Amino acid sequence: MGAFPFTVAASDGRARTGVLSTPRGEIRTPAFMPVGTAGTVKALTVEQVAATGADIILGNTYHLMLRPTAERVRRMGGLHRFMRWEKPILTDSGGFQVMSLSKISKVTEEAVTFQSHLDGSRHVLSPERSMEIQADLLGSDIVMQLDELVALPADETRAADAMRRSARWGDRSKAAFGAREAQALFGIQQGGTWEHLRRESAERMIETGFDGYAIGGLAVGEGHEAMVEVLDFAPAMLPADRPRYLMGVGKPIDIVEAVYRGVDMFDCVLPTRSGRHGQAWTWDGPINLKNARFAEDDTPLDAASPVSASRDYSKAYLHHLVKANEILGQVLLSWHNLAFFQALMAEMRAAIAEGRMEAFRAGFASRQLRNAP
Amino acid sequence: MGAFPFTVAASDGRARTGVLSTPRGEIRTPAFMPVGTAGTVKALTVEQVAATGADIILGNTYHLMLRPTAERVRRMGGLHRFMRWEKPILTDSGGFQVMSLSKISKVTEEAVTFQSHLDGSRHVLSPERSMEIQADLLGSDIVMQLDELVALPADETRAADAMRRSARWGDRSKAAFGAREAQALFGIQQGGTWEHLRRESAERMIETGFDGYAIGGLAVGEGHEAMVEVLDFAPAMLPADRPRYLMGVGKPIDIVEAVYRGVDMFDCVLPTRSGRHGQAWTWDGPINLKNARFAEDDTPLDAASPVSASRDYSKAYLHHLVKANEILGQVLLSWHNLAFFQALMAEMRAAIAEGRMEAFRAGFASRQLRNAP
Repeated sequence: MGAFPFTVAASDGRARTGVLSTPRGEIRTPAFMPVGTAGTVKALTVEQVAATGADIILGNTYHLMLRPTAERVRRMGGLHRFMRWEKPILTDSGGFQVMSLSKISKVTEEAVTFQSHLDGSRHVLSPERSMEIQADLLGSDIVMQLDELVALPADETRAADAMRRSARWGDRSKAAFGAREAQALFGIQQGGTWEHLRRESAERMIETGFDGYAIGGLAVGEGHEAMVEVLDFAPAMLPADRPRYLMGVGKPIDIVEAVYRGVDMFDCVLPTRSGRHGQAWTWDGPINLKNARFAEDDTPLDAASPVSASRDYSKAYLHHLVKANEILGQVLLSWHNLAFFQALMAEMRAAIAEGRMEAFRAGFASRQLRNAP
Repeated sequence: MGAFPFTVAASDGRARTGVLSTPRGEIRTPAFMPVGTAGTVKALTVEQVAATGADIILGNTYHLMLRPTAERVRRMGGLHRFMRWEKPILTDSGGFQVMSLSKISKVTEEAVTFQSHLDGSRHVLSPERSMEIQADLLGSDIVMQLDELVALPADETRAADAMRRSARWGDRSKAAFGAREAQALFGIQQGGTWEHLRRESAERMIETGFDGYAIGGLAVGEGHEAMVEVLDFAPAMLPADRPRYLMGVGKPIDIVEAVYRGVDMFDCVLPTRSGRHGQAWTWDGPINLKNARFAEDDTPLDAASPVSASRDYSKAYLHHLVKANEILGQVLLSWHNLAFFQALMAEMRAAIAEGRMEAFRAGFASRQLRNAP
């Protein structure tokens, strides 16, 4: 294990910045991973995604196993070649989408049986099958264990059961993953909002031993306050010498609070999804380009951005594209938002290296409220 | 008049190749103009459009006058600056979309009154207003006279009336356009499929005097055979020393037949529209990427293309994107199709220059049938 060297270059309070080195390239942390659900970061070419500064993207096991199927991706040379992304890819285990998108027919100790949201067909996902899909068929660089999670709020017994099953599935995931030089396996902490369950989960994960440690089961309905409370204790339970990954988070303000508390990696559909709906994220908070106040605003979203979408187009033009429901509007706003998220991570890496994360966090939080409705 | 020098470098039979020089750049003819209906060539950035080799694009007066309005485009610096396209733009007069998209409430000698297809609001388009919108507000490089056209088949009296009104509106368009150094005005020939009406129309246009001469009122329901019959006589009626532009055409095979008969310029929504619907144009004819036979086809659409969409992505990946209804599929196929249309024009320019247009035409026609259903 520990195939991927992880170097923490600087710490500032609980926050840290460093580099996770993989055979396909370095991942600068804190890192944001754009989500490439079905083999595409929605609406964007890989060149556009790379231009935002993304070091790694995420692929969804659930979507890919259903369409075009993991076996077909393998026959086409693996996920990197299929979608033309040469840098690292992390794949999730499929567990979250099985819960959120499909109709589950049965969860047993052995596996979860579910129906496809596309055509109702029946599929089985076990820890062993998830490893086969991620590591062997898709050819992911960072593989996630299969876990069971519960939507919050949940009762404690239910949360404890899912956490313990996740721990056992973590053992089986590791056994099935085996010894690999060029791929890494991350475990997933569960336990809802209960500190003692999060601690038990962390202890079990450390016992198993992973290349990285994810915090799962958050951003599933508990709200910002409850999530931050968990982040006050959960990251510190995980090994300091391995990357910590907060799954499915989130809004810029959530990401900043998590980095401040020691998290290294993130993924979220928010920048691309909100971009497709006319929303642009800025240092002054989110804005909706559909708003009439932008109709004749000749300024770009971010004149200092390295990305054309942010730098070269007027808000007036983006307003027009969104109002006219033009695909180019979805492309440009998705692209801008990903560039903004990457710029945010770069700013935090610099703030941590320079020992001013506390000030950055305070300044960011107040600026983000400027465009609040 | 004659502000834009037009040089015919070589002729081959009736076909010719040359350059139309404008202050914003040279247009190599025969030229294909991608359609940027509402201030965007649908789904593509201007950099992607430019990469296909397009020297000029088309903008739609009808769409832009309704949204965001021509006055707003003017306040934003004109259409070139608004959409970030620095090379030439030709705008149509609005007449065709008024007929095809809106509910016309009244056509008089003075103007056409119509209802917006967007919100039902009432608008008036006269020759003078069309000139104001195109030349002064949008800032088009090539302005089209306002014309009246009829869907085919039509009766001869109706076609003759519309042709004669178009001629009178051509006079008014020219008077309103006035003397301009950096912009050109094109007239439009009408007359349906009747040779004597096309001749009368051409004579009236020459009497008026334009910078270029368009063939209008085709590709409106008459079919390929009837269109080619008109092209057997119509282009030769128009001055040989000015560019001839066949409006709204068309399929590659139609374009080749028209170039063969002396036409220099084309525009059509086909490459972008069919791209959004999963269709790719190739030298062997159109293919639908949704077809299961492409599911594991590892070859690109055109390995020799200068454009990434055509060269770098496997048909298997494009098949997956189309099946999954991913925006990137629409982007890549629109981009590929525009690159194919530009490659077709480049091949014809070379064929004419080398005196082998007849052979090119015959070879192209037979190859285009290869993928026929």
